[in-house]
Amino acid sequence: MKFAQFLLKNGSVAGIPKLVERFAKFSPSPLSMKQFIDFGSANACEKTSFVFLRQELPVRLANIMKEIDFLPDKLLGTPSLKLLTSWYSQSLWELVDFLEKDPDDKDVLTSFVQTLVNIRNRHNNVVPTMAQGVVEFKEAFGVDPVTNQNVQYFLDRFYMSRISTRMLMNQHTLIFEGSANPAHPKHIGSIDPSCDVVEVVKDAYETSKMLCEQYIIFNAMRATVETHETSPTLPPIKVRVSLGSEDLTIKMSDRGGGVPLRKIERLFSYMYSTAPSPVHIDNSRNAPLAGFGYGLPISRLYAKYFQGDLQLYSMEGYGTSAVIYLKALSSESVERLPVFNKSALRHYQATTEADDWCMPSKDPKKLGKYERTR
Amino acid sequence: MKFAQFLLKNGSVAGIPKLVERFAKFSPSPLSMKQFIDFGSANACEKTSFVFLRQELPVRLANIMKEIDFLPDKLLGTPSLKLLTSWYSQSLWELVDFLEKDPDDKDVLTSFVQTLVNIRNRHNNVVPTMAQGVVEFKEAFGVDPVTNQNVQYFLDRFYMSRISTRMLMNQHTLIFEGSANPAHPKHIGSIDPSCDVVEVVKDAYETSKMLCEQYIIFNAMRATVETHETSPTLPPIKVRVSLGSEDLTIKMSDRGGGVPLRKIERLFSYMYSTAPSPVHIDNSRNAPLAGFGYGLPISRLYAKYFQGDLQLYSMEGYGTSAVIYLKALSSESVERLPVFNKSALRHYQATTEADDWCMPSKDPKKLGKYERTR
Repeated sequence: MKFAQFLLKNGSVAGIPKLVERFAKFSPSPLSMKQFIDFGSANACEKTSFVFLRQELPVRLANIMKEIDFLPDKLLGTPSLKLLTSWYSQSLWELVDFLEKDPDDKDVLTSFVQTLVNIRNRHNNVVPTMAQGVVEFKEAFGVDPVTNQNVQYFLDRFYMSRISTRMLMNQHTLIFEGSANPAHPKHIGSIDPSCDVVEVVKDAYETSKMLCEQYIIFNAMRATVETHETSPTLPPIKVRVSLGSEDLTIKMSDRGGGVPLRKIERLFSYMYSTAPSPVHIDNSRNAPLAGFGYGLPISRLYAKYFQGDLQLYSMEGYGTSAVIYLKALSSESVERLPVFNKSALRHYQATTEADDWCMPSKDPKKLGKYERTR
Repeated sequence: MKFAQFLLKNGSVAGIPKLVERFAKFSPSPLSMKQFIDFGSANACEKTSFVFLRQELPVRLANIMKEIDFLPDKLLGTPSLKLLTSWYSQSLWELVDFLEKDPDDKDVLTSFVQTLVNIRNRHNNVVPTMAQGVVEFKEAFGVDPVTNQNVQYFLDRFYMSRISTRMLMNQHTLIFEGSANPAHPKHIGSIDPSCDVVEVVKDAYETSKMLCEQYIIFNAMRATVETHETSPTLPPIKVRVSLGSEDLTIKMSDRGGGVPLRKIERLFSYMYSTAPSPVHIDNSRNAPLAGFGYGLPISRLYAKYFQGDLQLYSMEGYGTSAVIYLKALSSESVERLPVFNKSALRHYQATTEADDWCMPSKDPKKLGKYERTR
């Protein structure tokens, strides 16, 4: 924070808008999982990674910072958003600082790793801080469908951008910090090339049984218990993993009574989140999944990050299935990255507009009363 | 046809555009299933229905005719579309003819019923005729994602509009033709107030076993057989019906090997339909479901017509589930009707635009090659 304050005080952030303009002109460059693995495993070249990241990270930050500028002033004016934007400005500033430095200088590479670690830590609480800002905005000005739609559009892109920049920073620091991960010697940065999905599912099951942290599974368990309080036995929560030539699909089905179709979309909404806002921000790494009811939308972003998806379908009166789609091939698992352009801009300029389908009014027109429509 | 030719020859269709303008100014008036039932069962008043329909039918026709005008000229120019639009012009003409007539004149009511029957028969082949036009257009000019998107948008609205006008005409003619349906004495027009969903499912199963007409179920069967050719036994196709306080949900699951997520949307596309175009148009009432691979998109429209939906979930390598959502309450089953307005207009003026997410290029950027993006 101190440095950000310093920047703000001394007005050297005056340069920030120029930097944003400059780097937002570039389109982010999506990498494939195959590239992440190949690069990390084979001849991982710190210099190459450095030269790529000192350009690519500013590009990704600048693209999303352009969109932050288009948020409602009332949201940008909240203390949370002011703090958050100062983090982005400072991190952009620190990264750009490396553009003129010599890639062949060992010290430069070392200080770059340190800078990435600092940036990563600085941004640890971006999700709950942004969520807090949305809560403040909501409490002050309420929610309407249009605002909800715009905030949903922005946050899906904002959090996706964050997932991607952290992925890049994590890979570089983990691979070039020198110390290989003793717990997982075969991991390439944060990637497990021989990941056993079924083991991961079992692990998540055990974890959620104890901690009840993993939003989806936890909900499936809670719904099951609540729906079958009176019965002596509980119906199982079934998980099926299927590997095709294109998709790896994980389906989890409960018999927790289900949710009406009308309410499904709301479960992915950041603004209509029914979770009570937490009293204070949890500093643990689980923060994104804790407290704000962001489990489902954020989980869906992680699935979409490499061209997958997370879908919910429910049978009210019976139960719900959550299906996670992942690309089976590392060559097809390519980063899904937001880019700021005219199409994106249009979403922030959208005005309230009549639906192009007739609204099912609470009091549908009476037969023969058509004169009223004249 | 004759009368249409007559109109076209004698230029009395010159009046059609004026009529379209006049009635497109009104918004269609959605009716609820409850209203359909109440009106038909209790004091069904032919005069009230007549007075409502002679205004509402032109309004619904005019609203969709406005959208037809915005189709690509190359599509409007096909023989199929010329024929189809002549049907709409003639039917609008015939309906408006009743606006000045006396609702208390028994002969007027009788000739109105006859006119509705004629119109309904004239429009019997609207779906395959439109589909034929799309095929001609496709073969002549190919398909691109934008055209596909626009045609998809239009056809979903066009076919929905048709479903709704035929519902109105069917109810009026069936209820006031005098002759009650001997096979289903308790039906209200085409509505079975005490419909047994499970019986309907069993019936559909028997029908598809024999005729293999019902696209979805048929496909589930075919997929199951093809996937398990070598095995001595076939896995079951399971159907579950669940009634909640808001939704009635029907889920059908097969183990036919599934479809990759990437291909799911295509199954609902009118333009990317993989079905070979039929040699000649089938005149049977099943035409909409026969030959053009329209089974899924049209089935989804029927589900959406009363605020329901049809969704597909597949696990590649395992199987597919089709879920049909219907409103449990007749008061919430309100017609979903397209209305022509600025929002609709915008869809036809849409131009090709860059995606607001980075395209996963076949050849993702190489690490360190960032200079190329400058």
